[in-house]
Amino acid sequence: MHSPATSAIWLDCTKQTNKQKLNKKYTNKTLPLSGMKKPYKEIIDLSWGDLQRAGVKPLSFVRQVLAACVYPKLLKSHAEGSEAAEGIFVSSGSYTATAGIPEIVHRVAEFITRQDGGIPSHPENIYISAGSQRNIVTILMNRKASPRTGILTPVPCYNIATLSMMAQGATVVPYYLNQEHSWELQIEELHRALESAQRVCNPVALYVINPGNPTGHVQSRKSMQEVIHFVSERSLFLLADEIDVYQDCFNGEKTEFVLMEMGPPLSDTVELASFHSASKGFMGECGLRDGYVELVNLDHTVMKYIYVLFSKDSSAPVLGQFALDLMANPPQPGDPSYPLYNVVRTDIDITTLVLADNAKRAVEVVNNMLGFCCQPVEGGAFAFPQLHLPPKAIEKEMGMKPDTYYCTRLYEESGVLVRPGSEYGQKEGTYHIRFCIATSADIMEELLKRLSIFHTQFMEDFS
Amino acid sequence: MHSPATSAIWLDCTKQTNKQKLNKKYTNKTLPLSGMKKPYKEIIDLSWGDLQRAGVKPLSFVRQVLAACVYPKLLKSHAEGSEAAEGIFVSSGSYTATAGIPEIVHRVAEFITRQDGGIPSHPENIYISAGSQRNIVTILMNRKASPRTGILTPVPCYNIATLSMMAQGATVVPYYLNQEHSWELQIEELHRALESAQRVCNPVALYVINPGNPTGHVQSRKSMQEVIHFVSERSLFLLADEIDVYQDCFNGEKTEFVLMEMGPPLSDTVELASFHSASKGFMGECGLRDGYVELVNLDHTVMKYIYVLFSKDSSAPVLGQFALDLMANPPQPGDPSYPLYNVVRTDIDITTLVLADNAKRAVEVVNNMLGFCCQPVEGGAFAFPQLHLPPKAIEKEMGMKPDTYYCTRLYEESGVLVRPGSEYGQKEGTYHIRFCIATSADIMEELLKRLSIFHTQFMEDFS
Ligand SMILES: Cc1ncc(COP(=O)(O)O)c(C=O)c1O
Ligand SMILES: Cc1ncc(COP(=O)(O)O)c(C=O)c1O
Repeated sequence: MHSPATSAIWLDCTKQTNKQKLNKKYTNKTLPLSGMKKPYKEIIDLSWGDLQRAGVKPLSFVRQVLAACVYPKLLKSHAEGSEAAEGIFVSSGSYTATAGIPEIVHRVAEFITRQDGGIPSHPENIYISAGSQRNIVTILMNRKASPRTGILTPVPCYNIATLSMMAQGATVVPYYLNQEHSWELQIEELHRALESAQRVCNPVALYVINPGNPTGHVQSRKSMQEVIHFVSERSLFLLADEIDVYQDCFNGEKTEFVLMEMGPPLSDTVELASFHSASKGFMGECGLRDGYVELVNLDHTVMKYIYVLFSKDSSAPVLGQFALDLMANPPQPGDPSYPLYNVVRTDIDITTLVLADNAKRAVEVVNNMLGFCCQPVEGGAFAFPQLHLPPKAIEKEMGMKPDTYYCTRLYEESGVLVRPGSEYGQKEGTYHIRFCIATSADIMEELLKRLSIFHTQFMEDFS
Repeated sequence: MHSPATSAIWLDCTKQTNKQKLNKKYTNKTLPLSGMKKPYKEIIDLSWGDLQRAGVKPLSFVRQVLAACVYPKLLKSHAEGSEAAEGIFVSSGSYTATAGIPEIVHRVAEFITRQDGGIPSHPENIYISAGSQRNIVTILMNRKASPRTGILTPVPCYNIATLSMMAQGATVVPYYLNQEHSWELQIEELHRALESAQRVCNPVALYVINPGNPTGHVQSRKSMQEVIHFVSERSLFLLADEIDVYQDCFNGEKTEFVLMEMGPPLSDTVELASFHSASKGFMGECGLRDGYVELVNLDHTVMKYIYVLFSKDSSAPVLGQFALDLMANPPQPGDPSYPLYNVVRTDIDITTLVLADNAKRAVEVVNNMLGFCCQPVEGGAFAFPQLHLPPKAIEKEMGMKPDTYYCTRLYEESGVLVRPGSEYGQKEGTYHIRFCIATSADIMEELLKRLSIFHTQFMEDFS
């Protein structure tokens, strides 16, 4: 059998069967079942923060541009001026400057400037790299992390972030988000966490995720201001992971904006790294693996060393850099490509509405189930409802954590893939599940239906 | 001004001027000059190990497949079966499994098995990640590198490799390649280097590059066998960076093959990590940022931890995974896409011949210049000739190393970009330059012409 990738070329000249083969091989989204009899036809996988896996289609506008960068000859009028297109063709196959293609880095800075109401962002503070998490790792390398290096980290927390810190050798200092208050970040808890780190390690940074993953909360401006005062007083480096699925769902500000608004001396002194990614936003292109970090108020010599650290990766994947460019600078009314883009823009708006609806529906349905409750989902891609498991379900010896057991049975009996709260950290004795709400309304309804049926049965089994 | 990427869409419906703008923005290859008068029309940049930057065109077959993965609708017959193509469309925008798309990882294992004359390679030992260097970093993380962690590293050495080790906190223990013997890796020198590390650090690994970057040597089978005995006796982890530009230029074996051939106990015990990349081979796709590492004879618990370390990156860029698939499994005679691929294959063969010729020409021309000499280029992308600088050029106070000064003047006076040997490490008191030979015959000749003229003048100036 020849490989699917090599037969992709056949898409344009061969039979349907080849296409189907190709389709079957590389798709993750739908997982049709064969063999054993199950009470469902297809598996629903909402266990990732991956829009396309969850059934949201990539934006055709974005894909058209990327395809043109990969192979301009495919475009209709290519014959008319083939050499002209060669520039992007070739450069998409080359290493770029360490921080990214300079023109794109500039436009990302302009984008941030617009986002921050005109407060200037500087291109020399921006690095594009292969995924957001990698940026966190690189930034932490600068601190020559050792077990003495403490990083205040939320609980619950996006598990890959915690993993990155630990892999880098740092000590994770947990602070708990307040579930009863919509997973709010409360400043007293930061003080408590910092105290708790005494004699264990030397906390150098505070990591915040906004909107929360897995929690779905959106940080208020007041909370951001408190956090900024806190890191300033305690000389902590603020790592703000502010990657939203759909910016338009998200009414909160970004930390950098709030910091700049607070004026000197804070705006000149608080050290901030703020992260964004092509995996999220309206792009939702997780496979491209590009994100950027903006560094604010870092010392000149530190910046020099960070440049060296980034240069060890040679450069970021080029196609994702193009995608970030599109994200930062979508065509504007009057631009020649605006009409085409605008069609897609409408899709984005519709999807945004669907997500907002999904968030509401999920919370509503879950809160109507016995032994299940969910805080409002204000932003981000996930709902993180709490399971009030019957004691028998907790005490039962099943060789795994109770919420993992719940998720395993949910998968086996209902064909629904979600993740247990224990992967993200949760208060001792509480149990949660996390599922992605960034999907179509139909898939969301189907998930909620299967979840309801399963949950009722599960609670009965252990009552 | 709207961004080039957003106007790419206009390639198919708008005026030439837009295309030219696009071209001008993103191309790195040719750097036409404006303004000041210079004795040359275009800059030649052979300072990177980047085939496409050096003027080698990407393979249209590869680009066609990738474009189909990005946007199947572009393909002529798409209308005929549009939903079928949706699989790759969607999955190219999703995270993949940690080690890569399982089918591709399997085919890479089959590829290695074929390369190694049938000795089986196991998919569970292979990780695809965003670039070769990143793999080295991840593997070293496993060793919880500290300044006590020593890594025996060649001098001269691909500078990003050394940087990666140092960024990871390890200590680089230099061993010198023997320039007089075509940059051979000599076993006595490894013994000396290991001795020298006593009391400084604890050497845990030996890093070899084959073919050499920047040196262009190819390691003999005998040398590999000696190295294998050496690492076995000293319980070192062998890191083999065996990324060739054109496999067909390269008559040497891979370390893994030699190790397996040596049989037990060595073949069952020597810990080996061997690296490959889509940046090299006949792909030459540096912008995709995908490479793989194969791990041999690692302990089961170590492998488990390495899985965790790789999972912090979520996954490798997907389009580069497709490219690795093509590299590992090009269509075979009889496959439906073979005829199309075969046209490209001919291009590869021609390019391979050109590179072999370039290597010979470069060595010949350089060896004919006074105060310049070059060891044979047996493989890889680079020539690394030695400069015998006149004492005046060495003593002159120019605020930079003599070879950096030479390269700076070469650039200013001849528009040729190459790199000084001091960036890669060289024996005290010796000076070199490195340039890429993976370019067209025309560009190679032009470089050699400009270099000759400049060099003669430079030597005269300091005589
Ligand atoms: C808070 C947060 N940070 C980072 C990421 C990952 O971004 P990337 O794909 O760029 O690594 C995610 C993805 O889910 C996320 O939720
Ligand atoms: C020895 C060696 N290793 C690794 C690389 C880089 O590979 P990648 O682009 O996959 O990081 C190069 C590129 O020049 C190289 O020469």
